[in-house]
Amino acid sequence: MSKKTPMRVLGIDPGLRASGYGVIDAVGRDAKMVDYGVIETNSKQPLYERLRIISDGIEEVALKYQPDRMVFEKLIYCKNVSIALLLGQARGAAIVAGARLDIPMSEYNPTEIKSAVVGRGRATKEQVQKMVQILLSLPEIPEPDHAADALAAALTYVHSKPLADLMMRIKE
Amino acid sequence: MSKKTPMRVLGIDPGLRASGYGVIDAVGRDAKMVDYGVIETNSKQPLYERLRIISDGIEEVALKYQPDRMVFEKLIYCKNVSIALLLGQARGAAIVAGARLDIPMSEYNPTEIKSAVVGRGRATKEQVQKMVQILLSLPEIPEPDHAADALAAALTYVHSKPLADLMMRIKE
Repeated sequence: MSKKTPMRVLGIDPGLRASGYGVIDAVGRDAKMVDYGVIETNSKQPLYERLRIISDGIEEVALKYQPDRMVFEKLIYCKNVSIALLLGQARGAAIVAGARLDIPMSEYNPTEIKSAVVGRGRATKEQVQKMVQILLSLPEIPEPDHAADALAAALTYVHSKPLADLMMRIKE
Repeated sequence: MSKKTPMRVLGIDPGLRASGYGVIDAVGRDAKMVDYGVIETNSKQPLYERLRIISDGIEEVALKYQPDRMVFEKLIYCKNVSIALLLGQARGAAIVAGARLDIPMSEYNPTEIKSAVVGRGRATKEQVQKMVQILLSLPEIPEPDHAADALAAALTYVHSKPLADLMMRIKE
C-alpha cells in the first residue's frame, strides 16, 4: 500500500495592519494544522514599508513551509473606497509574494468559504472559527481572527476540490 | 569644476490593465527623458498572474535603469469600491517591486503633481501632458496616457524637492 502524501495548503487573510496565515497538511479531506500566525505592520511606517513587510512576511512563510497551494479569500466588498484602496494594496503585496514563487493559487469568495467550512453560506464568523477548531482538532479557536480566517481559507481548498483530484494527489 | 551628477527618477502610474513608467535624469530642475512605456496585462489572465506581471515588469525597469528614487501618484479617489480593490492590488504589486529593491519612494497626490508640473493644482490632464512634453523637450506628447502620467510623477519629484537638497545632490 502506497503512503499517502499530504498536500500542504497555505491560507492567507491579507490586511494592511495584520495579515493572517495558516498552514495545513491534508490527506484527502483529513487535515491537520501545521502553523498559523499573523504578519503585523505599524501605522506609523510609510505605506511602501508596510507593503514590503507584508510581502516579505508571506514569502518567508511560503519558503519555510513550501506549500503546494496558496489560498486567498476573494475581496468582493469593502466599507468604502479609501479602505478598499488600502486593503487592495495589502492584498496585492501578499499575492505577488506567492506568485513570484510560482505557487499555484486559488481564491474563494466568503460564501464559498462558509459553505465549505460550516456547510452554510450564511454562517457567522464565530461558526466558521469554531469549525476551524473542530476540523483541525485544535485545543482552542486560533487567535487572532486573521489567523483563524486564513486557516478557514486553506480548509476551503481541501473541502472544495473534487475528490477525484484529491485521489490523484494521494496516488502520486 | 565638478561634474554635476544627474539624479535618476522613475515615475510609476500603476493600473491593472496598464501601468505606465517614465524614467528621467535631472540635474537641479533640468530634466531629460531617458525612457517611458507601459506594462500591460490581459484581462483573461488570472488576477495573481496579472499582479505578478506588473511586479516583475516594474522590477525589470528598475533593475535596468537603477533609479535613485521611485515616485507614485497617491491614490485618493476611485469611482467605486470594486475598482478601488482592483487598482489597489495593482498598486500594491508595483510598490512592492520597488520596496524590495530598497529604492527610496515618494508619493504625491494629483493636486501636487498638477501644481508642480503645470503650476496650477486644478490643471487639466491635457495641460499636464503638454507640460510633460515641454519640460522634457519631447517631439510629441508621450503615449499612452499612463506613460505621460508616470513622467509627470517623476517630474514632480524634481520640481518639488527643496533646492538645497538638489544642490547637495549635485555636489556629491
